[in-house]
Amino acid sequence: MALDREIERLMAETSERLSAQENLRNVCHIRWHGEPLPSVDSVKKIVALSRAILFPGFFGESDINHLNVKAHTLLNIQQLHALLVNQFTAGLCLGEECENVLDVDGIERLAGEKAMGFIGRLCDIRGLLDSDVQAIFRGDPAVTMPEEVLYCYPGIRAVSSYRIAHEMVRLGIPVIPRMISEIAHGETGIDIHPAATIGKGFMIDHGTGIVIGATTVIGDGVKIYQGVTLGARSFVKDENDDPVKGLPRHPIIGDNVVIYANATILGRVTVGDGAVIGGNVWLTENVAPGERVLQAKAATMIVKK
Amino acid sequence: MALDREIERLMAETSERLSAQENLRNVCHIRWHGEPLPSVDSVKKIVALSRAILFPGFFGESDINHLNVKAHTLLNIQQLHALLVNQFTAGLCLGEECENVLDVDGIERLAGEKAMGFIGRLCDIRGLLDSDVQAIFRGDPAVTMPEEVLYCYPGIRAVSSYRIAHEMVRLGIPVIPRMISEIAHGETGIDIHPAATIGKGFMIDHGTGIVIGATTVIGDGVKIYQGVTLGARSFVKDENDDPVKGLPRHPIIGDNVVIYANATILGRVTVGDGAVIGGNVWLTENVAPGERVLQAKAATMIVKK
Amino acid sequence: MALDREIERLMAETSERLSAQENLRNVCHIRWHGEPLPSVDSVKKIVALSRAILFPGFFGESDINHLNVKAHTLLNIQQLHALLVNQFTAGLCLGEECENVLDVDGIERLAGEKAMGFIGRLCDIRGLLDSDVQAIFRGDPAVTMPEEVLYCYPGIRAVSSYRIAHEMVRLGIPVIPRMISEIAHGETGIDIHPAATIGKGFMIDHGTGIVIGATTVIGDGVKIYQGVTLGARSFVKDENDDPVKGLPRHPIIGDNVVIYANATILGRVTVGDGAVIGGNVWLTENVAPGERVLQAKAATMIVKK
Amino acid sequence: MALDREIERLMAETSERLSAQENLRNVCHIRWHGEPLPSVDSVKKIVALSRAILFPGFFGESDINHLNVKAHTLLNIQQLHALLVNQFTAGLCLGEECENVLDVDGIERLAGEKAMGFIGRLCDIRGLLDSDVQAIFRGDPAVTMPEEVLYCYPGIRAVSSYRIAHEMVRLGIPVIPRMISEIAHGETGIDIHPAATIGKGFMIDHGTGIVIGATTVIGDGVKIYQGVTLGARSFVKDENDDPVKGLPRHPIIGDNVVIYANATILGRVTVGDGAVIGGNVWLTENVAPGERVLQAKAATMIVKK
Amino acid sequence: MALDREIERLMAETSERLSAQENLRNVCHIRWHGEPLPSVDSVKKIVALSRAILFPGFFGESDINHLNVKAHTLLNIQQLHALLVNQFTAGLCLGEECENVLDVDGIERLAGEKAMGFIGRLCDIRGLLDSDVQAIFRGDPAVTMPEEVLYCYPGIRAVSSYRIAHEMVRLGIPVIPRMISEIAHGETGIDIHPAATIGKGFMIDHGTGIVIGATTVIGDGVKIYQGVTLGARSFVKDENDDPVKGLPRHPIIGDNVVIYANATILGRVTVGDGAVIGGNVWLTENVAPGERVLQAKAATMIVKK
Amino acid sequence: MALDREIERLMAETSERLSAQENLRNVCHIRWHGEPLPSVDSVKKIVALSRAILFPGFFGESDINHLNVKAHTLLNIQQLHALLVNQFTAGLCLGEECENVLDVDGIERLAGEKAMGFIGRLCDIRGLLDSDVQAIFRGDPAVTMPEEVLYCYPGIRAVSSYRIAHEMVRLGIPVIPRMISEIAHGETGIDIHPAATIGKGFMIDHGTGIVIGATTVIGDGVKIYQGVTLGARSFVKDENDDPVKGLPRHPIIGDNVVIYANATILGRVTVGDGAVIGGNVWLTENVAPGERVLQAKAATMIVKK
Repeated sequence: MALDREIERLMAETSERLSAQENLRNVCHIRWHGEPLPSVDSVKKIVALSRAILFPGFFGESDINHLNVKAHTLLNIQQLHALLVNQFTAGLCLGEECENVLDVDGIERLAGEKAMGFIGRLCDIRGLLDSDVQAIFRGDPAVTMPEEVLYCYPGIRAVSSYRIAHEMVRLGIPVIPRMISEIAHGETGIDIHPAATIGKGFMIDHGTGIVIGATTVIGDGVKIYQGVTLGARSFVKDENDDPVKGLPRHPIIGDNVVIYANATILGRVTVGDGAVIGGNVWLTENVAPGERVLQAKAATMIVKK
Repeated sequence: MALDREIERLMAETSERLSAQENLRNVCHIRWHGEPLPSVDSVKKIVALSRAILFPGFFGESDINHLNVKAHTLLNIQQLHALLVNQFTAGLCLGEECENVLDVDGIERLAGEKAMGFIGRLCDIRGLLDSDVQAIFRGDPAVTMPEEVLYCYPGIRAVSSYRIAHEMVRLGIPVIPRMISEIAHGETGIDIHPAATIGKGFMIDHGTGIVIGATTVIGDGVKIYQGVTLGARSFVKDENDDPVKGLPRHPIIGDNVVIYANATILGRVTVGDGAVIGGNVWLTENVAPGERVLQAKAATMIVKK
Repeated sequence: MALDREIERLMAETSERLSAQENLRNVCHIRWHGEPLPSVDSVKKIVALSRAILFPGFFGESDINHLNVKAHTLLNIQQLHALLVNQFTAGLCLGEECENVLDVDGIERLAGEKAMGFIGRLCDIRGLLDSDVQAIFRGDPAVTMPEEVLYCYPGIRAVSSYRIAHEMVRLGIPVIPRMISEIAHGETGIDIHPAATIGKGFMIDHGTGIVIGATTVIGDGVKIYQGVTLGARSFVKDENDDPVKGLPRHPIIGDNVVIYANATILGRVTVGDGAVIGGNVWLTENVAPGERVLQAKAATMIVKK
Repeated sequence: MALDREIERLMAETSERLSAQENLRNVCHIRWHGEPLPSVDSVKKIVALSRAILFPGFFGESDINHLNVKAHTLLNIQQLHALLVNQFTAGLCLGEECENVLDVDGIERLAGEKAMGFIGRLCDIRGLLDSDVQAIFRGDPAVTMPEEVLYCYPGIRAVSSYRIAHEMVRLGIPVIPRMISEIAHGETGIDIHPAATIGKGFMIDHGTGIVIGATTVIGDGVKIYQGVTLGARSFVKDENDDPVKGLPRHPIIGDNVVIYANATILGRVTVGDGAVIGGNVWLTENVAPGERVLQAKAATMIVKK
Repeated sequence: MALDREIERLMAETSERLSAQENLRNVCHIRWHGEPLPSVDSVKKIVALSRAILFPGFFGESDINHLNVKAHTLLNIQQLHALLVNQFTAGLCLGEECENVLDVDGIERLAGEKAMGFIGRLCDIRGLLDSDVQAIFRGDPAVTMPEEVLYCYPGIRAVSSYRIAHEMVRLGIPVIPRMISEIAHGETGIDIHPAATIGKGFMIDHGTGIVIGATTVIGDGVKIYQGVTLGARSFVKDENDDPVKGLPRHPIIGDNVVIYANATILGRVTVGDGAVIGGNVWLTENVAPGERVLQAKAATMIVKK
Repeated sequence: MALDREIERLMAETSERLSAQENLRNVCHIRWHGEPLPSVDSVKKIVALSRAILFPGFFGESDINHLNVKAHTLLNIQQLHALLVNQFTAGLCLGEECENVLDVDGIERLAGEKAMGFIGRLCDIRGLLDSDVQAIFRGDPAVTMPEEVLYCYPGIRAVSSYRIAHEMVRLGIPVIPRMISEIAHGETGIDIHPAATIGKGFMIDHGTGIVIGATTVIGDGVKIYQGVTLGARSFVKDENDDPVKGLPRHPIIGDNVVIYANATILGRVTVGDGAVIGGNVWLTENVAPGERVLQAKAATMIVKK
C-alpha cells in the first residue's frame, strides 16, 4: 500500500517527539560514553551456554558423546567468557561502582576479573546442581529415569538459573543476575531472587507461581511445590517513611523442610529442620523443628445441593 | 530410513482425510478471498517493535545512543505501520465489520486508517508507561536503579502489551488485541484482558497467575501482586439461558488500592480508593475507601507434632 | 579484550574437570553406541508440526487456503514422521525396552512402527481437539468468534500438547511425552501429565497454575479454571519406605464437572457428574453427582479500618 | 570502543550529506508513490523457486519423492506467484509503461496478469530445458549419468535463467529479466542477454567468459564452449551521433553449429547450419553451412630455447 | 492481492502437469527406496568444513587460537564425517556400484568406510595444500605476507576444492567430486576436473577462465595464469561414432612449467619440465623441456590512426 | 549411524595431528595476543554496508524512500564503523606496522582513526561512483534506464569494491583491501588490484576475466570490455634473483581510451588519450594518443569445408 503524505508526516512527527530528550528520561538509558548496555538476548545466551556447560547434551548441542564432550565444553566456556565480560561491563556501568563511567576500559578490566571468577566457580555450581538432580530423582516417585529430571523438570531450569545468578550476586554484578532470574521466571513461572541463599539438594515440583524473596535462607534438602510464596510481610520504614533497604525480611527455612502447594510464608520467620507446611497454609509465625502445619479444612467449605 | 509403501499410503490417506472440507470446519479458517489471516508471528513482531519504540535500548536493538535513537525510532515505526496494516486487515476480515469480505481492498483502506490512528497514539502510550515505570521504581524497595525496572519486571512486559492492545480495542480491531494479551500471558503468566480500563502508575510485582477480566476498571496508582484474580462471579443469563454479553461483571478498583498475593475479587464490586486487600483474601462484596481486608489466619491452620 | 595466559589456563583446567567422567555421572548421558539423544528443539518441532497439521493456518504457515491445505498437510506429515522416528528412537533407547542399546537399528525399526502408529491416530486427535474448541466457544461468553479460541486460548495449546503426548504414552514411548507436556507447561503455566485420561470437550480458561497428575481421570465436558490442582495426597510406601509406583493416587472427575479458580483436589477421590467445585476450595473427599462445594467465605477474613 | 564526540559528529554530517536530495540523483531511486522497488534478493528467490519447480530435487528441497513432488510444486508455484506480482510491479513502475506511477494499483493488476502468463508458460520452459539436459548428456562423453548434468553443469544454471528471463522479456517486463541474467552471470561467468533467441537442445560446456548479445539468434542443437563472444561490432549512429537502439547487431547462428573455446563472432553475420568455429577464432564475416573455420596456428607462435 | 479462481485453477493445473511422471523423466530423480539425494547445500558444507579443518581461522570460525584449535578441529571432523556418510551414500546410489539400490543400508555401510578413508587422508591433503601456499608466497612478488595468500588467492579455493574432490575420486565416489569442482568453479571461475592429477606446489594466479580437463597430468611446481585451457582436441570415436570413454586426451605438463594467461594447450601433448608457454599461445604439439613458446606478436595487429 | 571405536580413534588422532603446532605453521595464524583475525564474513558485511550507503535501495534494504533514507544511512554508517575498527585492527596486526602486536589496544586506537578517515571519504567515493554510473548510462546503447545500470552491471559491483578498497590502501590498511577486491573478483570475474589508480567515469561491460594490476594507472572516461588484461610483462630481479618489489610494472592508460574484449596489454607501456585497442590484441608497446590498434584478422584463420 502506498504511503501517502499524511501518514509520512505523522511518522516523522511521532519519531521526533518520541526521541526528544525530555521524553526519553525514564524509558531509555542513553550511553554517553559508548559503554555496552545489558542485552536480554546476550543474557539469554549466557544462561544457555552455562546450562550447556553444566548439563552437556541435555541443554545445547544434543550430539554430545565421550569423544567430544571436552571440546564442546572448552568452546562453550570461551564463548561464555566473551559474553560475560561484555555483559558484566554493561551491568557494572549501570551500577554504583562506576559513578564515573568515563573509564569504560577500567570497568571492562574489572568485568574481566569477575568473569574469570565466574568461570572458576563453574565446577562448584555443577556440584550443587548435581545434588539438586539427585534430590528430584530420589524424591519424586513419578520419575522413571534420571534423564527425565533433566529434560522435564522446570525446577532444574529455575534452580540452575538461580545458582548461576547467585554467583554473579556474590561477585557484585548489578542487574544481570536479576535479568537471569527474570528470564527463568518467564520460562517456568518460578521467581527466585538471585540474592536468596539456598542449600544443596533443593527440589521444586511443578513450580508455577513460586516466589522466593531476596533475603530468604533455605537449608539443605528442602522441597517446595507450586504456588508457594516465601515473601516479606511488611517493610520497616525510616524517618522519611521510605522502606529501609537491606534488612532481612523473608523466611529462614531449615534443612529437609517440605512446603506443599500454594502455601504462603511471610516475614522473617523461622521454619525448623524437618518441618512440613501443608498446602494453602498461610504462615507468619515460627514453626518448631519437626512440626507439621496444615490447613484446617473443616472451616473452609460448605456444600450445597 | 527408507519409507516403505505402507507408510507412504498412510501419509497420503491421512493428509487426504485431514484436508477434507468437512473435517476442517472448526479447526481451519479458509480464506476464500485471499484476505490475510492473523499470524501469531506477525503479532509478536508488532509487540516487539512497539516495545522497541517505547523503551529504546531495553527492548529491540541494544546499541541505542543519543545519535541514533531517532533513526531507529523512525525505521521501527515504518516497519510497525506495515505490519499493523496487514494484521488489522486480517483482524477486521474476521470480525463483524466485514460481513462482506469480498471487498478486501476496502477493508485494507480502513485498516490503514486505524493503523495511522495507532501510530498517532504512541506518544500517549509512552506517557502512561512512563508513569508505570516510575510507580514501580518508587514503590518497590528492592529496586536499586530505574533500569532494573525495565529489564527485570514482568509487569512492564504485561502492562506494555496491555496498553498497546487496549488502544487497538479502542480502535475497534477484533482478535488482534486478545492475541497480544495472550502472548504477554505466555511470557509472564499475567493475563490482562485488553478491554479492561487501567489508570496510570500501575504496578505489578512478580505477577504470575494474575487474571484481570474484560470489564474491570482500575484507577490510578494501583499495586497488584502475584496470583490475584479480578474476575466475574456469575453470568446473567437471557431467556435462552445464554450468557448476556457486554454487561459489566468484573470489579471496580479505586485509586491507590493495594491487592496482595493470591487475593480473589469476584463480580461487579467496588473497592474504594486507598483500600488494602490482604493476601489470599476471597472477596465478593464492596470495600469502603481506606479499609483493610485481611484473611483471618487463626481459622485456617492446625499444627500437629 | 586479549585473553591472557591466566584465563586460558583456567579455561583449559575448567573444561578438563567438567569433562572428567566422574564429574559427568548425573549430568550428562553419554551415548556409547551412537544412538540419538532426545533434543528439546526437535521435540518442539514435533509439537509445532503436529499443531500445524491439526489446526492449519492458526499454527504454522498462515497462508493456508483451500488450494494448498492438502499440500501443506502432506509435507508437514512427512517432516513430522522423520522427526518422530528420530526422537522415538532416542526415547526408547533411554527407556526400559532397550536394556541392550547395542541394537540401535532394531530400536529404530520399532520407533518407525510407533511413528506410523502415531500418524495413524492424527485424525482421531483432530476429532478430540475439535470437540475442545467447540466446548470453549460454547462455554465462554467472552468469545466473539471461533477463530479467537484458536488464536487466544492457552488451553488450546496445553490440551493439544496433552492429546499429542497422551498418544505417545499409549504407544509406550518413554520421556518424549513428558518433554512435550513440560514444553506446554512453559508456554502456558498449565501442567497436564501426559498419562492422565481426559474426555472430549475439555475446557480450560486462563489456566496459569493448573496441575493435573498422572493418574487423574477426567470425563467429558469438564471445565477447569486457573490455579486448579488435581494432585496426590500422599504416597503409599512399601516395606522399604519407598513410594509404591503406578498406584492410582489422583482424582476421578465425572462428566460436566466445573472446577473454579485455585481449587485444590487431592487424592483418589471421586467428583460426581455435574458437580461444581468453587474457587479456592480445598477438597480431599468424594463429592456426589450434582453437588456444589463452595468456600465458606465468612470464616476467612477480617476487616480493619 | 567508546564513540567520541568527533566521530559522532562526522557520522551525523556524513549521513546528512549522503542523504541530501541533490546527492542522491543518480544513485538512489526514490519511490514517491510507495511502489515496490526491484530487490536483488527477491529476484534471486524467483530464480531459485523457478529452478526448484523445473528441476525438482536438484534445486530446492532435496527430499523430493513421488509422494510429495506435486505438493512441493504447488506450494512453490504459489510462492513464486506472489514474488512475481511484487517484482513485476516494481519492474513495470520503473519502465516505460508507467509514466504515471500514481496508479500503483493498476500497475499491480497488470503485473498480476503477466505473472499469470508466466506461470502458464512453465510447462513449455520445462520442455525446452529438458531438451537442453538431453543435449548435454548426449553431447559430452565425460558425463556418466544424467543426474551429473543437472548437478554439475553451469550451463544448466545459465540456460535455465536465460529461459526464465526470456519469457519475462516476451511478457514485456522491464529490468527484472536483466537482473536474472546478471545473477546467472555472477554464478557462472556466462552472460546471456535475456532478449537473445535460443533454440532447443542448447549446450554450453565450462562456460566461463561466454557473452551472448541481445539480438543474437541461435538455432537448435548448438554447442558453445568457454570464452566465446557473440557480440556487436559497432553501433549505427543517428544524426546526433547517438547509437540507434533496437537494430539487430549480433550474429545469427544456424542449427547444430559448434563454437569452440574463446572464439569471437562479431556483428550481424550468419553462421550457417552445421558450421564449426574453431577455438580462438576471430570472426566478423558470414560462414556457409557446414564450413569449418580454424585458427591458423603456424602464424601465432615462436619458440625460443 | 487476492487470488481469484482463474489463477488458482492455473496453479493447480500447472503443478499437476509438471508433476506428471512422464514429464519428470529427465528433470527429476525419483528416490523409490528412500535413499538420500545429493544436495548442493550439503556438499557446500562439506567443502566449508574441510577448508575450516585444513586452514583453521582463515576459513570457518575466525576465533581460532592455540587453546581451541584442536577442539574446533575435532568437532568439525565429526560434523564432516556425518555429512560425508550421507552424501557418499547419495552419490553411490546414483552410481554404477549400486544397480540394486534396494540395499540402502549396505550402501550406507560402504559410504561409511569411504568416509573413514577420506578422514584418514586429511593430513596428507593438508601437506599438499601447505606446499601450494608456499609456492604462491615464494612465487608472487606482490604477496606481502603468507596470510594474504590464504585470504586473497582464488587459487587456494580452487586447489583446495580440487584436492578434496580428487581424494573422493580415488575413493570411487560418483558425482559428489564433480559437484565440488563445480562449486569451486562458480566461486572462482577456475574449472579443474577432480580426476586430473596435479603435483605439489601448484600455483594459480588470478585464475578466471582456467579449464583443466579430466585426464590432465600436472607435475610439481607448476604455475598457471588466468584463461589457460588444458583441454581435449578431439575425441576418438568407436564403430558407433560414439566417443570412446576413458582414453587420455588432455595434456601432460612437466615439473616447474609456467603457462601464461589465456594460453590454450589441447590434446595429449607433453610439455617438458621447466618449459614456459607464453600468453595467448595456441598449442597442440609437444614442447621440449626448457623450451619457451611465445606468441608471434608482429603478425597479430595493425595500427590505424 | 553409530560411530564405532575405530572411527572415533581415527577422528581423535587426525584432529591431534592436524592441530600439532608444527603442522599449523603455514596454514593457521595463531593469535597469541587475542587480537582479532580478518574474517571474510565481516569483510563481506563491510562491502555490503558500504554499497547500501552509497547506492541506497539498490543494495541493502529495498524499502528506501525519501522519509527514511537518512535514518538508514546513519545506522548503516554506525554499523560500518564498528566493523571497520575491528577489521582494520585485524589487518594492522597482520601488517608491518605492528611487529609488536602486544599493544593491541594501541593498534585498535590507530584502527579507529583510520576508520574515521574512511567514513570521512564516503562522500567522495559516492561522487566517483556517480560518475561511473553516468558513464555506463551514456556509453551503452543497450541501457534503457539508469536503474538498470545499478541493478544489472557487474562493473558497478567491481568498481564500487575497487573504490572502497582503494581508499583503504591509501589509509595504509594491509590485507583487507585485497580481501575486498578478491570478494568482488569472485562475484564478477573482474579482478582489479586495490592499489591501481583509476580516474572518474570508468566503464566496464560484461567484465568476466578482466585483470588490472597493482601499479596500473587509468585516466578518466576509460571503457574496458570482458577478458582484458592490464598486466606485468616481467619482473625486475635484484642481485638475489628475487623480484624487486614496488616498481611500476603495469600499463598507463590515458583518458577516454577504449579497450575491447580479450585485449592484453603488458608492462609499463603508455596508451595515449583517446586511443582504441581492438579485441584480442596483444600489446606490449606504447600507443600514441588517438591511435587505433586492431588485430590483423586475415592472418589468424583458415577455412575448411
